[in-house]
Amino acid sequence: MKTLYKTVAAIILITFSACDAKKELSNQIKNGKSYWPNGAQLVISVSMQFETGGQPEGAESPFSGNPLPLGNVDMPAESWFRYGAKEGVYRMLNLWKKHDIHVTSHVVGEAAIKYPDVAKAIANGGHEIAAHGIAWKDQWNLSYKDELDFIKKGIDTVEAITGQRGRGYNANWLRRGVNTLKVLQELDFLYHIDDLSRDEPFVTKVRGKNFVVMPYTLRNNDIVNIEGKNWSPDQHLAQLKMEFDQLYKEGATKRRMMSISMHDRIGGAPAVVNAVDQFIKYAKEHTGVVFMRKDEIANMVKDDPNTPEDNSEFKFNN
Amino acid sequence: MKTLYKTVAAIILITFSACDAKKELSNQIKNGKSYWPNGAQLVISVSMQFETGGQPEGAESPFSGNPLPLGNVDMPAESWFRYGAKEGVYRMLNLWKKHDIHVTSHVVGEAAIKYPDVAKAIANGGHEIAAHGIAWKDQWNLSYKDELDFIKKGIDTVEAITGQRGRGYNANWLRRGVNTLKVLQELDFLYHIDDLSRDEPFVTKVRGKNFVVMPYTLRNNDIVNIEGKNWSPDQHLAQLKMEFDQLYKEGATKRRMMSISMHDRIGGAPAVVNAVDQFIKYAKEHTGVVFMRKDEIANMVKDDPNTPEDNSEFKFNN
Amino acid sequence: MKTLYKTVAAIILITFSACDAKKELSNQIKNGKSYWPNGAQLVISVSMQFETGGQPEGAESPFSGNPLPLGNVDMPAESWFRYGAKEGVYRMLNLWKKHDIHVTSHVVGEAAIKYPDVAKAIANGGHEIAAHGIAWKDQWNLSYKDELDFIKKGIDTVEAITGQRGRGYNANWLRRGVNTLKVLQELDFLYHIDDLSRDEPFVTKVRGKNFVVMPYTLRNNDIVNIEGKNWSPDQHLAQLKMEFDQLYKEGATKRRMMSISMHDRIGGAPAVVNAVDQFIKYAKEHTGVVFMRKDEIANMVKDDPNTPEDNSEFKFNN
Amino acid sequence: MKTLYKTVAAIILITFSACDAKKELSNQIKNGKSYWPNGAQLVISVSMQFETGGQPEGAESPFSGNPLPLGNVDMPAESWFRYGAKEGVYRMLNLWKKHDIHVTSHVVGEAAIKYPDVAKAIANGGHEIAAHGIAWKDQWNLSYKDELDFIKKGIDTVEAITGQRGRGYNANWLRRGVNTLKVLQELDFLYHIDDLSRDEPFVTKVRGKNFVVMPYTLRNNDIVNIEGKNWSPDQHLAQLKMEFDQLYKEGATKRRMMSISMHDRIGGAPAVVNAVDQFIKYAKEHTGVVFMRKDEIANMVKDDPNTPEDNSEFKFNN
Repeated sequence: MKTLYKTVAAIILITFSACDAKKELSNQIKNGKSYWPNGAQLVISVSMQFETGGQPEGAESPFSGNPLPLGNVDMPAESWFRYGAKEGVYRMLNLWKKHDIHVTSHVVGEAAIKYPDVAKAIANGGHEIAAHGIAWKDQWNLSYKDELDFIKKGIDTVEAITGQRGRGYNANWLRRGVNTLKVLQELDFLYHIDDLSRDEPFVTKVRGKNFVVMPYTLRNNDIVNIEGKNWSPDQHLAQLKMEFDQLYKEGATKRRMMSISMHDRIGGAPAVVNAVDQFIKYAKEHTGVVFMRKDEIANMVKDDPNTPEDNSEFKFNN
Repeated sequence: MKTLYKTVAAIILITFSACDAKKELSNQIKNGKSYWPNGAQLVISVSMQFETGGQPEGAESPFSGNPLPLGNVDMPAESWFRYGAKEGVYRMLNLWKKHDIHVTSHVVGEAAIKYPDVAKAIANGGHEIAAHGIAWKDQWNLSYKDELDFIKKGIDTVEAITGQRGRGYNANWLRRGVNTLKVLQELDFLYHIDDLSRDEPFVTKVRGKNFVVMPYTLRNNDIVNIEGKNWSPDQHLAQLKMEFDQLYKEGATKRRMMSISMHDRIGGAPAVVNAVDQFIKYAKEHTGVVFMRKDEIANMVKDDPNTPEDNSEFKFNN
Repeated sequence: MKTLYKTVAAIILITFSACDAKKELSNQIKNGKSYWPNGAQLVISVSMQFETGGQPEGAESPFSGNPLPLGNVDMPAESWFRYGAKEGVYRMLNLWKKHDIHVTSHVVGEAAIKYPDVAKAIANGGHEIAAHGIAWKDQWNLSYKDELDFIKKGIDTVEAITGQRGRGYNANWLRRGVNTLKVLQELDFLYHIDDLSRDEPFVTKVRGKNFVVMPYTLRNNDIVNIEGKNWSPDQHLAQLKMEFDQLYKEGATKRRMMSISMHDRIGGAPAVVNAVDQFIKYAKEHTGVVFMRKDEIANMVKDDPNTPEDNSEFKFNN
Repeated sequence: MKTLYKTVAAIILITFSACDAKKELSNQIKNGKSYWPNGAQLVISVSMQFETGGQPEGAESPFSGNPLPLGNVDMPAESWFRYGAKEGVYRMLNLWKKHDIHVTSHVVGEAAIKYPDVAKAIANGGHEIAAHGIAWKDQWNLSYKDELDFIKKGIDTVEAITGQRGRGYNANWLRRGVNTLKVLQELDFLYHIDDLSRDEPFVTKVRGKNFVVMPYTLRNNDIVNIEGKNWSPDQHLAQLKMEFDQLYKEGATKRRMMSISMHDRIGGAPAVVNAVDQFIKYAKEHTGVVFMRKDEIANMVKDDPNTPEDNSEFKFNN
């Protein structure tokens, strides 16, 4: 573990120096207490879902509330999805580059097959390629064996295209099943994100061994605007800033992580990227704020004794 | 009654002094008129629902609009609920402590069984433990006898864990039945909150005796965001401030109470706590604003001749 | 007609002087053109629906989306409606008094029967008592005779209580039927409001004679918040101000009327009244803004040659 | 092509001079790079749908969520639609005139038949009359022949009234079918807008020849408020400004187009026109912002080698 930790620490140092150059030491370091390595006061991790091209007929969109009869191609809905590959991901990649941030991208296997250049561009930007299944469909109802095939096919496929093998998992609409964590462990995954119960990473025992849970959120998430209405970008910015202010304050005395999520065809729209751009600038004006990939965080916390252990799902994972 | 009133007055004095130290006298005292004991111009009472762990399969959440077939565990929805016990209640307890406020917590019996430490932490913070049924389920359709058992089991259970016996009641989704007030009276309850008809407490006759109604509101209530979208924290703050400004102004010539409500897994989110934190600061900048537990208020008003009597539901309660 | 016009002009002068004392002359008067008598640049008319107590089982409320089985009393929903009679109307009456404004109140007959003091308080405040049917139920599906009885019973009932006989009509959810205007004419009504097609009053021929249409709006209307969520009071204020700014500007070269609507249990909430209070202050800072009852306006425009005539519904009204 | 290009360039020059007089040169011209003719940094194109009068029974409106049984006239809903012809279009025409902007109007054939004066007023304002079908109904389910008749009847009808023959197409609710582009090509159309995949125009091969796609957006579109609630005009303004800021920035290094859409009875409301008025002023304060009709843009880009070619729908169009 020690070697791994050092490697990770090196990666982190680079990340930190990029973000915090010229800033004063964070409160924790000043106080001699530290809840994250390197004394960060708040770690922010961004998820970028790449799903476009993998969607099934009738998938959620501004059109799906008024669906066509099965078997008819919904031409404008298809074009709405394509936006993610034609504009959305690239716009977000520019945003991460501008701010020197690396994010975690959850890539559906079929999306990578359909748009390999997009998947490669994400990987080439230094971002984490995480797993999101081979296809965009339910997995909570699969048998153990079928679920394993479903996930394995996804990481094999995406690795063949991007050169990165996913070690973090995100299920379709977060709806993992009761076996999912065991399946992920068998496939050598490090963590999953389909849990909304905390504002910091924790470990849970799966067949007696630590498995990392990197909590996701529906709050700081463009998915609340999947219908394409009732959520303006200034509301999104207000949500991000007000959430940040509270977590940052709490970060002075406790380990805190802020999770943000953006989907190719939703978060990739100009006004949303604008809102997130403003948010990142705002966050970076605070000492001790660090943006990290989820695999980096998971590696850091997995065997850290300060990481909470939570076995709320013991009956499924033992 | 007189002894009780004195005791309560003592409690109130303490509360008042904490809030109003160094402030000038309120308008009422200056005018020689008073609508609340101690001359408060506006009394604010916060409800904090603790329900997590008591929810039935398919309970309302951001996932329930697209439910799983019965009998399947909705893993992310369950984790969404757990947030209330892992983060939400504790974050709110910190907020109340920071502002030296005591609130009323409506505790579902099964939530206290599942998370006794959370229930105890609430009680230990000086907050009122009020009743919310033994389980999170419909009670409007129960017989008198079954409803009595349902409520009694709840208060017995929560008392065994927290040491406090609930004397205020909140029904699931406010949906009490036609017998509920009689049942509550038989169980020695002092008040209930499942009424939206006024901005001040009132009494209603139940079998000829005064029973206190502490009106609740859907307006200043995080429950409007149970779907997890279409309501940003800046909107919540605007609602609270604009409601406060009006009620505070009215409080100069009339008894007024402002009711605010927060649920463990919704109001306990960072951005909502941030909004309420800002609101409390704002409210406290006004002279004569007092935050009180609902049992304190109910005791104060129960036999006060200035309290309105309203028998709109006479046919059910006589 | 001339006599009538003079009488109305006198009424208007009083209204104008109350609002516009000490203000400079409006643009129209300065330009020598006038689109309203007395040179007002914008006439604003407020509707205040009084319906509480007349609602049928399962009527729209924050609870009706999840209805109880027929035959069960929805106790919290009933209390939500009562708010209109206990708090809402009185709060709004105070607002109108504070600003010296007279509004048009659409009173459901059964609401007046249940809460006669509320109906009388409205009438005693100098407000117009307009008709809203005897009961809160569909009328679009009634025969001519039944519809006439439905409306007549309403005005007879409300007149007996308030002393005012309604001469303006508002149908339940605006859903008049194809005969409604003929029925209203037979009952000597002057105008109706169930039309959304213009931003100024117009006349339409009913059996060859002028009948006034006072357009209503769903935009500046608290009814958009009947579900009790997704609409914060700052949004309401923004809607009112931005609508006003545009209509006021247009009023310099055209006759314009702004219609605002508030329902007892919705618009009567503190935060909404606060928003409308702020709006009225804002509007009154502009020269030539006049608040008027709808009957006053209808009388003014009925035989004014500058009033547009619109016979879009000719086939129903000839 | 060269002759055409010159003609278009002349048109554009006029447009540019109107907008950019007295402004300094845009970044592109300064940098010696150009993504649009004349060095514009961002081209904005407004669509104005004229549909009122062509709507079928039960068409989407604030009333359609609670529909009347088939065969009953929904009187207030009909009046809500009429607003588009009585107020909405004329208010928008005034706005375009005030800012010297020409827009593209998608005109339903039956709307032009019912309100020929409105259609003529649009054409006489120098705006593009584009096609929107003969009637407001589904076309995705028509045979090739029926779809051709449906579209041809629309352009013939509208041309007879306005003197302009539509060369751009917008399908009902964007729901074109798999044959639509071939049909449009056969009818000599230049472009269609029912595609949401990009923030700039592109060409796609239809039977081997270039066909222009002028992407539309659901984001900067009043249609998100078709239900008449949950979207305030300040939100609309925030959406427009935040979208603009991002696209304008991107326009320094890439060709970018911003698409805005307004429907007669929705966008024509005072508060929305106010919001768009403020937006236009804001946009015009930036150097190199040009408002153009879609036919002008389509002609410019059709054979420009810098225009992206995208054959994502190859299987339908070959």
